[in-house]
Amino acid sequence: MLTRIDHVGIACRNLATTAEFYEATFGLTVVSRETNAEQGVREAMLIVGDAPTGTSYIQLLEPLGPDTPVGRFLERRGEGIHHVGYGVADIDAALAAIGATGVRLIDARPRHGSMGASIAFLHPADVGGVLTELVQPPAR
Amino acid sequence: MLTRIDHVGIACRNLATTAEFYEATFGLTVVSRETNAEQGVREAMLIVGDAPTGTSYIQLLEPLGPDTPVGRFLERRGEGIHHVGYGVADIDAALAAIGATGVRLIDARPRHGSMGASIAFLHPADVGGVLTELVQPPAR
Repeated sequence: MLTRIDHVGIACRNLATTAEFYEATFGLTVVSRETNAEQGVREAMLIVGDAPTGTSYIQLLEPLGPDTPVGRFLERRGEGIHHVGYGVADIDAALAAIGATGVRLIDARPRHGSMGASIAFLHPADVGGVLTELVQPPAR
Repeated sequence: MLTRIDHVGIACRNLATTAEFYEATFGLTVVSRETNAEQGVREAMLIVGDAPTGTSYIQLLEPLGPDTPVGRFLERRGEGIHHVGYGVADIDAALAAIGATGVRLIDARPRHGSMGASIAFLHPADVGGVLTELVQPPAR
């Protein structure tokens, strides 16, 4: 069901300086920057590796304000890893299968994610404390 | 420098039930189980995807006792994502390059990691709150 680790989401206070840090320290490259008002974040995607079938990203997330999911995360836990996103080929089928096991879905239906993907979150309380995202990349 | 996301490390209280959960819910497969006394953990590696060059893992970590790094993490933060590990081709070169940028190295020299890899951790305070691991897979 899960085709790869699509990305690791990292909460930060300052997107510009954190992206510069990852570029300077680890040689990563920002391949996309966007604002997702629905999720209350400004974000940058940095590509890790270059295998066409195995591409993963670091997703840096800066909250648009304190009263957003990432803003509350920063207040509660400070900067750090926020969630993990897994690639899936068919997000509707994956949500149906996972929901049938009893895991609560934060998003019963997919919504818009980074770089044109369809995404949905699972409830961390049902996934051992891990905020878990499913990611179906856009059709090419 | 970073070739891929090698793994996401997840702290859990019960390795057996958490591994069963990941297998049943997400269809992942445990490919390795080992105990690392030096790091104070019992662990299971679950493979995500099957691209030969893009293989990533979920690494489930159960502490061997409360007075271990993962035991203290569980006490402080509960179950959840503990660290991220990136693949590198040459861990000595990567540590030298990263150390030269001013990031403190928890492990100035590589030590033994999962499945025969050489690994080293970077200080999370210097990586935006992210406990970051470098992983050089064993030579084939």
